Amino acid sequence: MSKGTQKYIYYFGKKGTDGSKDMKELLGGKGANLAEMTSIGLPVPPGFTITTKVCAEYYARGKRLPRGLMDSVKANIKHIEKETGKKFGSSETPLLVSVRSGAAVSMPGMMDTVLNLGLTDQSLDALANQSGDYRFALDAYRRLIHMFGDVVQGVAHQKFESAFEKIKSRYGAVQDTDMGIKGLEELVKTYKKIYRTTTKKDFPQDPYVQLELAIEAVFRSWNIPRARRYREINDIKGLLGTAVNVQTMVFGNMGEDSGTGVAFTRNPSTGQNKFYGEFLVNAQGEDVVAGIRTPRHVDEMKKWRNDVYIELQGTKRILEKHYRDMQDIEFTIEKGHLYLLQTRTGKRTGKAAVKIAVDMVKERKINQKTALLRVPALDLNQLLLPTFDPSAPRTVLSHGLPASPGAASGKLAFTAEDAVRKSENGERVLLVRRETSPEDIDGMHVADGILTSTGGTTSHAAVVARGWGKCCVAGAVNTVIDEHTKTVIINGRQFTEADILSIDGTTGEVMLGEIPKVEPKLLREFNVLMQWADRYRKLGIRANADTPHDARKARSFGAEGIGLCRTEHMFFEGNRIHIMREMILAKDTGERKQALKKLLPFQRKDFTGIFKVMNGLPVTIRLLDPPLHEFLPQDEPAQEALAKSLKIKLSEIKERVWGLAEQNPMLGHRGCRLLITYPEILEMQVKAITEAAIQCLNKGVKVQAEIMIPLIGIEKELEILHKQVSETISTVCKAKGYKRKLNIAIGTMIEIPRAALTADEIANHADFFSFGTNDLTQMTLGYSRDDINSFLPDYIHNHILERSPFQYLDTTGVGQLVTMAVKKGRSVKKSLKCGLCGEHGGEPSSIRFLHNAGLDYVSCSPFRVPVARLAAAQAALA
Amino acid sequence: MSKGTQKYIYYFGKKGTDGSKDMKELLGGKGANLAEMTSIGLPVPPGFTITTKVCAEYYARGKRLPRGLMDSVKANIKHIEKETGKKFGSSETPLLVSVRSGAAVSMPGMMDTVLNLGLTDQSLDALANQSGDYRFALDAYRRLIHMFGDVVQGVAHQKFESAFEKIKSRYGAVQDTDMGIKGLEELVKTYKKIYRTTTKKDFPQDPYVQLELAIEAVFRSWNIPRARRYREINDIKGLLGTAVNVQTMVFGNMGEDSGTGVAFTRNPSTGQNKFYGEFLVNAQGEDVVAGIRTPRHVDEMKKWRNDVYIELQGTKRILEKHYRDMQDIEFTIEKGHLYLLQTRTGKRTGKAAVKIAVDMVKERKINQKTALLRVPALDLNQLLLPTFDPSAPRTVLSHGLPASPGAASGKLAFTAEDAVRKSENGERVLLVRRETSPEDIDGMHVADGILTSTGGTTSHAAVVARGWGKCCVAGAVNTVIDEHTKTVIINGRQFTEADILSIDGTTGEVMLGEIPKVEPKLLREFNVLMQWADRYRKLGIRANADTPHDARKARSFGAEGIGLCRTEHMFFEGNRIHIMREMILAKDTGERKQALKKLLPFQRKDFTGIFKVMNGLPVTIRLLDPPLHEFLPQDEPAQEALAKSLKIKLSEIKERVWGLAEQNPMLGHRGCRLLITYPEILEMQVKAITEAAIQCLNKGVKVQAEIMIPLIGIEKELEILHKQVSETISTVCKAKGYKRKLNIAIGTMIEIPRAALTADEIANHADFFSFGTNDLTQMTLGYSRDDINSFLPDYIHNHILERSPFQYLDTTGVGQLVTMAVKKGRSVKKSLKCGLCGEHGGEPSSIRFLHNAGLDYVSCSPFRVPVARLAAAQAALA
Repeated sequence: MSKGTQKYIYYFGKKGTDGSKDMKELLGGKGANLAEMTSIGLPVPPGFTITTKVCAEYYARGKRLPRGLMDSVKANIKHIEKETGKKFGSSETPLLVSVRSGAAVSMPGMMDTVLNLGLTDQSLDALANQSGDYRFALDAYRRLIHMFGDVVQGVAHQKFESAFEKIKSRYGAVQDTDMGIKGLEELVKTYKKIYRTTTKKDFPQDPYVQLELAIEAVFRSWNIPRARRYREINDIKGLLGTAVNVQTMVFGNMGEDSGTGVAFTRNPSTGQNKFYGEFLVNAQGEDVVAGIRTPRHVDEMKKWRNDVYIELQGTKRILEKHYRDMQDIEFTIEKGHLYLLQTRTGKRTGKAAVKIAVDMVKERKINQKTALLRVPALDLNQLLLPTFDPSAPRTVLSHGLPASPGAASGKLAFTAEDAVRKSENGERVLLVRRETSPEDIDGMHVADGILTSTGGTTSHAAVVARGWGKCCVAGAVNTVIDEHTKTVIINGRQFTEADILSIDGTTGEVMLGEIPKVEPKLLREFNVLMQWADRYRKLGIRANADTPHDARKARSFGAEGIGLCRTEHMFFEGNRIHIMREMILAKDTGERKQALKKLLPFQRKDFTGIFKVMNGLPVTIRLLDPPLHEFLPQDEPAQEALAKSLKIKLSEIKERVWGLAEQNPMLGHRGCRLLITYPEILEMQVKAITEAAIQCLNKGVKVQAEIMIPLIGIEKELEILHKQVSETISTVCKAKGYKRKLNIAIGTMIEIPRAALTADEIANHADFFSFGTNDLTQMTLGYSRDDINSFLPDYIHNHILERSPFQYLDTTGVGQLVTMAVKKGRSVKKSLKCGLCGEHGGEPSSIRFLHNAGLDYVSCSPFRVPVARLAAAQAALA
Repeated sequence: MSKGTQKYIYYFGKKGTDGSKDMKELLGGKGANLAEMTSIGLPVPPGFTITTKVCAEYYARGKRLPRGLMDSVKANIKHIEKETGKKFGSSETPLLVSVRSGAAVSMPGMMDTVLNLGLTDQSLDALANQSGDYRFALDAYRRLIHMFGDVVQGVAHQKFESAFEKIKSRYGAVQDTDMGIKGLEELVKTYKKIYRTTTKKDFPQDPYVQLELAIEAVFRSWNIPRARRYREINDIKGLLGTAVNVQTMVFGNMGEDSGTGVAFTRNPSTGQNKFYGEFLVNAQGEDVVAGIRTPRHVDEMKKWRNDVYIELQGTKRILEKHYRDMQDIEFTIEKGHLYLLQTRTGKRTGKAAVKIAVDMVKERKINQKTALLRVPALDLNQLLLPTFDPSAPRTVLSHGLPASPGAASGKLAFTAEDAVRKSENGERVLLVRRETSPEDIDGMHVADGILTSTGGTTSHAAVVARGWGKCCVAGAVNTVIDEHTKTVIINGRQFTEADILSIDGTTGEVMLGEIPKVEPKLLREFNVLMQWADRYRKLGIRANADTPHDARKARSFGAEGIGLCRTEHMFFEGNRIHIMREMILAKDTGERKQALKKLLPFQRKDFTGIFKVMNGLPVTIRLLDPPLHEFLPQDEPAQEALAKSLKIKLSEIKERVWGLAEQNPMLGHRGCRLLITYPEILEMQVKAITEAAIQCLNKGVKVQAEIMIPLIGIEKELEILHKQVSETISTVCKAKGYKRKLNIAIGTMIEIPRAALTADEIANHADFFSFGTNDLTQMTLGYSRDDINSFLPDYIHNHILERSPFQYLDTTGVGQLVTMAVKKGRSVKKSLKCGLCGEHGGEPSSIRFLHNAGLDYVSCSPFRVPVARLAAAQAALA
């Protein structure tokens, strides 16, 4: 990077503003928006942003600042001095600045910040004179030494804290604010001593030295473990680094006419169009975010300073009109003057995202397409989350702030490590912390819900939880947590790791034990958004459903058909498994046919039920797929019981179980291979489907059945089985005297690599293809889904895989086969219908790929249908 | 098929010959060669061939002869009548004909034949007058009624046989030939009665009716089960049907100056350039082929009729000069006149094929290329078959004819069904039969060897066995077999199903018990042929070898390197498995490294040994591949012993075994996945390889090591592991003070579909690709090799697969991935070396495909190297 061509620093202020909101990559989100807000005339304290490129260069140069940077910094400080009339390090009108990190993507609390920078022994009195408050100046100084020591020099936070506690108790102070001037003077002295003892240097008295060290510290904080881990978990990649924002300090702690706050322009939990946030009188911003004091709701500002409240409301209107989205702002009131310190697009729950998007279309701020693209498809899951059954009895132990909606029950974990460990043991976990910090993110990630005893709805716990759509109750009252003894006392009752509690992120309730849940009620806005999605999407959306009940659920979520009806699930119910086992244990074809005859009425009834619910929508029924041993009992007592009831010898059953056992059942005798070996199974199933169809049609129910043959790898397999299915359908029609044409499509799954490679041969015998990407992933990558966990963590850690290919389609490998098969299949049969059934059908990034691959539909679990509808619309609009 | 454009019948005789030897597809092998022999002036009784197309049409018309066919037949009979001066059905000079099947590919004894056709009550006396032998005429008639009844009308063979036996005993006749005129007259009457009783019709007295029915019967025999099964076993596909040859009868049973025989122009077992065959005086051809009477060697003909013998030798010269290959002929001598009834390329053993091919080049009959193309590559296996240890004691029980070379020991099976059953139980089987018939082929196929008590070297057993390269001793003397009691008495000693015997197909010895075997000595001609093969082939041939011993074997067979050295096999030897288990059971990386340190010297020693043997030829070493649980004992006693010796708790071992168990180990934690998880294993192995290489190089041994990383599916895997291998090599070089450049190539196996699909990415980090088509087949088709037998038989039966894809490369599916990977790999790295290691590397049809796919080499088991060398030459010449 040549010095001549590079602009290290972007200024924002009356002198001129170079940046804009579209320069996030270079200036970070905070820097870009400070520039933007300045440009549109909002009250922003002047300052400048050092670019993310400088951060990249800092690392490229082996952690050294580029030459000439500090000269530019000085020049820009001069601009600020000119604009504010203050002077950096002055003993009369000292300029203090904040030094903050800010990457292109928000990483709340992950990186470091230094406030009050520029304060020295020399300028301390000047600040006192200027503010007319010596106590305030002292307080600012002790904060600077503490933060600078901690952030820049790595002096343990705890050292400053315990010194503070000691002096507080000596002076009889309870709150920080109770501390008088004497105490603070002593504190500053002690802090400087701590600083000197630990760093072997004096606290720097040159403000530019402070500034240079602080800038470096912010750059360094880009690569500390917790920041890297946050980027890993949140899949944040490809950033240059963090920018550094140097900005004139304004003080919310300059007395009772000052304050500071954090707010969303709309409610980030519900989407309600109402200011949502908190403020603290006479406090610095950090006090709100860190959740150390419980703040007041922003509505209460009216009572405190109505003028400021009105100005804030005006700011909301300006911001939303300009940004056309809900904003998350930080502000400070210094002696009655409102300043904006940050704005960014506010994180929100799925519910809020839907409501805000639909409302903003109504308000003509955005159009339908933008609304559709703005709701993260996966977030719709949250709307479909169950809530606690309102009719279920509940013992409410306490209330907290409803920080992130949802309903969670779990065993208590008092540290992040405990939460991870318990979760690995398969337990549902509630993470219980006084307040959370970035060190806790691993534990927060695995927990079902998060409960804190302090902090507000904009605290670390709340922000992170909402981002993940995880349930959180913050600042629960009368709740005392002891991390060391691993106990919590809630309103006098003690709970330990062995106990289960429930939290309701929508009401803020903390409750005893596990409470049953019920299905959610859907927003009116949700249905509006879904209608828009249906208008724009090209992909059909079906659901996987095996029962009339599931089929009803699927339709209620807007599924346009059933893409996968697994007949084998039907065999596990009640008495059927018994007959199924009889069939498997049959000694010859005759006995097997006898058992199949008994199964037929059950299957027919299932199909009739499903056809009735779907009433003319397509229903794709997959013939028997799993290996037969899955139906036999594996343990001896169950085998004995079976032997007794079938009146055969235990040894016979054992022999059969042993005979059916396979080394690699995934690659064994299943799917169409079973149908080739036991054509009578196919015959029974097709007979049941055909009889059910005729029965429904005769009653005026519309039927669109599709028979799907699994695990085809060779053209001839499908040729043989297609013929057998057709013949069976004809035979049944004849037997039932059904004269009209019965349109039952016959197709195949494409789930074996060879099927994709030879799709042009296979298509000759298929009315449709349905990609089974679960199995196709297993075989294309050579991963057994049941065994992948032995190496997947190492693979993700080493960036070999970024995520499980069973959740996110491996577009490069598996996707290549899908694209190839669609192309080859349609090369011989132009109208070939191509769909997908499997987990990827409900995953947005996979849906985008499948849309581009030219699929006709995807089929996913009923709950995922709304996600798929929206993701399909987004794919079409992208 | 329009009548106008179709020629149903091809005539051969003085009147004119339409066919030639190149028309096998249309005329069948027999018909084409009868025409050819007629054309070149050899003595062939005149006749005509009804084409295979007529057979196809016969089936297409629902088993009815095409209209107009019989008119053509009549016209052609007229030609024969003209040529021979005889008349069909005449009561003065009756013309008799044979009606024989004959497909494009020889199917010995599978289809039906009728002889002496045209004989009726009316022409019987005329034949007697003409031949001057009433007994002969009667004998001809009883044969006709018997064969016609059996073949055309399905009258049980046994009915005629038992009538014959009864009358023979009544007349005191022992041999058929002892039967006088009276007896024969009675026999003819009885046969007619049997015919009438069974078919409810009289034996037809119109010769054209006989002819039409016989033609139809031959067509029908094309699709009888044994014929279909023969084609299935021998992989005969794509034929239209059988032709029908109608030919003037000549009689080998017209007295002591007549005879019949079957002979090869060279020895089909050894290739020796000497007439080889048998004849019977006063007999019809069927008597030789059926092995009912033990015939005399063709050399003895000199003593019988030297003039005929000389004529036969002349015929051999003409035939070999014309056909440029060894011929298998049938001939008949009627009253001193030699007639040829069939010639075809003679089936031969691998040994004979090699010798004949090389000899014929010497004799300037063919060139080297033809010689190479003429030896079926797989037949070389036979030359490499072990023989009985000549120094081992042997108790010879009897001698028979050395009908097909090889050495076989096995438990006795007295029926084909028993042989199949025993073989399925994993037993080695010797099929012991009086004589074999086409019904026995299933049993012959599974047997290790075949022993008959009657029949010669051209009997059914002998011909089939040689075709398959299976050991056979025919016509063992003093051997009485009782199929019902399942016993055999050999020179007075009785043996049952529980006994083991050995037979030597090269010497004809039948011996007691199991005799140890030794490696074969190779023919001089074999080496000559191999040199020619090396001259023409483009593919390099390497061998799979894990030890210095195997490496030596590989070189002795002409391998040009080791394409697969499996390091894991080294861990099973002796004490090593113990250390290996210690490594697997290690509690942490430290303990694991300790155990690996102990394994290192063993590995290094193995590699040093192999490098020494290969002395500069490439040695491709695959890093650890199988899942770790394969190294741990699965049964409790072995686990207890391990616990004791490692001084840990049994429960710990059980826990680890349980923890490592996988649902589908094929798709689990193995190959490079292990190396990612346990980089210390890779480090130890690479260290051992590098140290071994340096040690050898320092001693002046040349080394060309290639390190191969298994199971790569993702570019990043190889990127990481390639880097680690390189770094380890560098570290070792530095530690050992090795200054020169150590050229160790680092490559990968392509054995996961995704690797083939993304070969252009993977090639960036690979010096070479080696296709692991065993695993690639498992994953591309979704077949577990261990489990495929549950459905493979059904698949072959239904023609879904024609053969196991693990033996024969699935060129359409798996082959498509191979071709794709070579192309993609070389698109980014032009010089990328591509090879294959796995079973397909020694299979000729797969080698042909791989040659065309542009591979640089294949690697197979040492024994398969000669096969691969020849197959590669054939691929290059094709």
